[in-house]
Amino acid sequence: MSADGKTGLQLRSLIKKNGELEISLLQVPTPEPSADEVVVRVEASPINPSDLGLLVGAADMTTAKAAGSKDAPVVTARVPDAAMRAMAGRLDESMPVGNEGAGTVVAAGESAAAQALLGKVVAAAGGGMYSQYRPVNVALLLELPAGATAIEGAASFVNPMTVLGMVETMRMENHSALVHTAAASNLGQMLNRVCIEQQIPLVNIVRKPDQEAMLRAAGAVHVCNSASAGFMAELIGALKATGATLAFDAIGGGRLASQILTGMEAAASAAAGGYSRYGSAVHKQVYIYGSLDRGPTELTRSYGMAWGIGGWLLTPFLQKAGLERVAQLRDQVAAGLTTTFACSYTAQVSLPGALSLDAIASYGRQATGSKYVIIPSRAA
Amino acid sequence: MSADGKTGLQLRSLIKKNGELEISLLQVPTPEPSADEVVVRVEASPINPSDLGLLVGAADMTTAKAAGSKDAPVVTARVPDAAMRAMAGRLDESMPVGNEGAGTVVAAGESAAAQALLGKVVAAAGGGMYSQYRPVNVALLLELPAGATAIEGAASFVNPMTVLGMVETMRMENHSALVHTAAASNLGQMLNRVCIEQQIPLVNIVRKPDQEAMLRAAGAVHVCNSASAGFMAELIGALKATGATLAFDAIGGGRLASQILTGMEAAASAAAGGYSRYGSAVHKQVYIYGSLDRGPTELTRSYGMAWGIGGWLLTPFLQKAGLERVAQLRDQVAAGLTTTFACSYTAQVSLPGALSLDAIASYGRQATGSKYVIIPSRAA
Repeated sequence: MSADGKTGLQLRSLIKKNGELEISLLQVPTPEPSADEVVVRVEASPINPSDLGLLVGAADMTTAKAAGSKDAPVVTARVPDAAMRAMAGRLDESMPVGNEGAGTVVAAGESAAAQALLGKVVAAAGGGMYSQYRPVNVALLLELPAGATAIEGAASFVNPMTVLGMVETMRMENHSALVHTAAASNLGQMLNRVCIEQQIPLVNIVRKPDQEAMLRAAGAVHVCNSASAGFMAELIGALKATGATLAFDAIGGGRLASQILTGMEAAASAAAGGYSRYGSAVHKQVYIYGSLDRGPTELTRSYGMAWGIGGWLLTPFLQKAGLERVAQLRDQVAAGLTTTFACSYTAQVSLPGALSLDAIASYGRQATGSKYVIIPSRAA
Repeated sequence: MSADGKTGLQLRSLIKKNGELEISLLQVPTPEPSADEVVVRVEASPINPSDLGLLVGAADMTTAKAAGSKDAPVVTARVPDAAMRAMAGRLDESMPVGNEGAGTVVAAGESAAAQALLGKVVAAAGGGMYSQYRPVNVALLLELPAGATAIEGAASFVNPMTVLGMVETMRMENHSALVHTAAASNLGQMLNRVCIEQQIPLVNIVRKPDQEAMLRAAGAVHVCNSASAGFMAELIGALKATGATLAFDAIGGGRLASQILTGMEAAASAAAGGYSRYGSAVHKQVYIYGSLDRGPTELTRSYGMAWGIGGWLLTPFLQKAGLERVAQLRDQVAAGLTTTFACSYTAQVSLPGALSLDAIASYGRQATGSKYVIIPSRAA
């Protein structure tokens, strides 16, 4: 970071045609902001699961090697041949990373909206936020409430809007309750708080007893442990109690999505009465929004014909919801920044620190309870 | 069949709590038609894949045994334990079978609509059509065009309306071309004719070279053989040429649905340019409407986030389309009964004949090119 902000470090991810991933830090000039842009000095930017896809791509991080210097570290790793097809679109292109972050506005374009933000602490969903300085359009900024810090605002977009997007999708598609997997995650805890506040029945699916206890302590009524022997019976019980016919699944691979549909069908059949060889008429839906298990999804299709499964992504949801509704949701987030939508971190790292093999091994595991935030404004 | 039509044979399927399937023929009294009903003497009723689910359920038909007499045959078979859960809703309930058929109206209720059909040849989607006499509500009847026979009209509902439903779904969900699997089936040939007539680009997926040749001879432009070594490349080529982003899959199990989504994504990425780690923004959809392979569906999810897969069933589609539109589609079917929507049969059997082990082995295989029609009015 140059003293005058004219240049700054930026994290780049590059996958070469030969199958090598290279993560590095470049010193890049800070672009002049256009009329509707401001330059944010990034003071906090979280490493979300949604960032890892771009950061490490399909690389096998057990092959990661460190090179370069302490100030200019370079990490390399191998992308398995079988995964290279999916990387075709980004080969040999050095890409900035980091969906969101927060910091101080140090320069502003000519427009009144931009000028009004000079000196303010803002949250930004601008992409490329693993940078010391980043120009961002004012439309992608949220001015933080007075007194809120950059760390408090750093993750105010992706997780909060995803959580509110799930609730909004539930309403738009005429469901009245939700199922959530990997429910002990930062995002899952947030969804649990929002559902309690909005009195939405929620079935939390976790994988460990301590996660179960943690969510119950946070007020969750329905928590099922997919690793327990009685899982299917517990799940069906919770689905009967809540009437949930919509699930958001962060795991993706394996049989869990299919088990959820099976459970929903069992609950719906119990409620319906009368046999139909096509199953219940109630539509049962699972949206996969993450890929903690990159393996294939296996569907037994033992749930009649009224079911669907598909990908769910924040950006198309926001487009569907419309600008006005999104602005309302952003206001909800701002109002609950340090309560409902609070995010806690287990580690803070500088940009060079984010490239240490230890850090990568830790945040790359995507383990529940391990959450990193990058502080680009910190030197090392 | 009693001479006066007061009683008649009816095929029944029963799955007992002990896991035994029993298919039998009962002599049942013909109900008096209510005001809006007519009694149809059923002269032809096809064995569709959608009938087999109710007829044999989850039974393993390699264990089928014949019993009873020549006139009153009984067939029994075992339902594997693992499949009994899905049968829970129908246990110990003797169920009539046969979604559709055609025949002559021999009695009518008091309403003018019913009386007007006396003596007419009608197609009926009334359920329980594997019967010698069947009361059907006039709303479920189609009077056949003058000169059309019961055999020509027997299959005028399920397959034709499914085909038109696919085309209608394509339009309702903003796609402009279709992919179809098991495309050499009776239904597939019909879809091919409709798509040619309506100039809808169609990618036909088959499993054998002779099916490929047959469809090409019928005017199909894009035919891919999923058993050929170059399948994925051919499929991607056809998807690029047609821009198809909607598929209807009759197979269900295995990887084909996922391969289609992979192919659609490859075609969409080639058209888009620019990398997004979430894949193309184009929504790619597969509807599973059959289950020729009852095994699990395996999804690799190597097609970004804008994808969906789900069950598709005729009845909910008809409800969504609305009465008026359905009536228009029925008129299309009537107009093309012996051309576009013609169905050919490889064998005609009586009700007792439908219970011979040879016949069951043949139609139970659901092999393309093997299609049975039951002639209930025939004695044996």
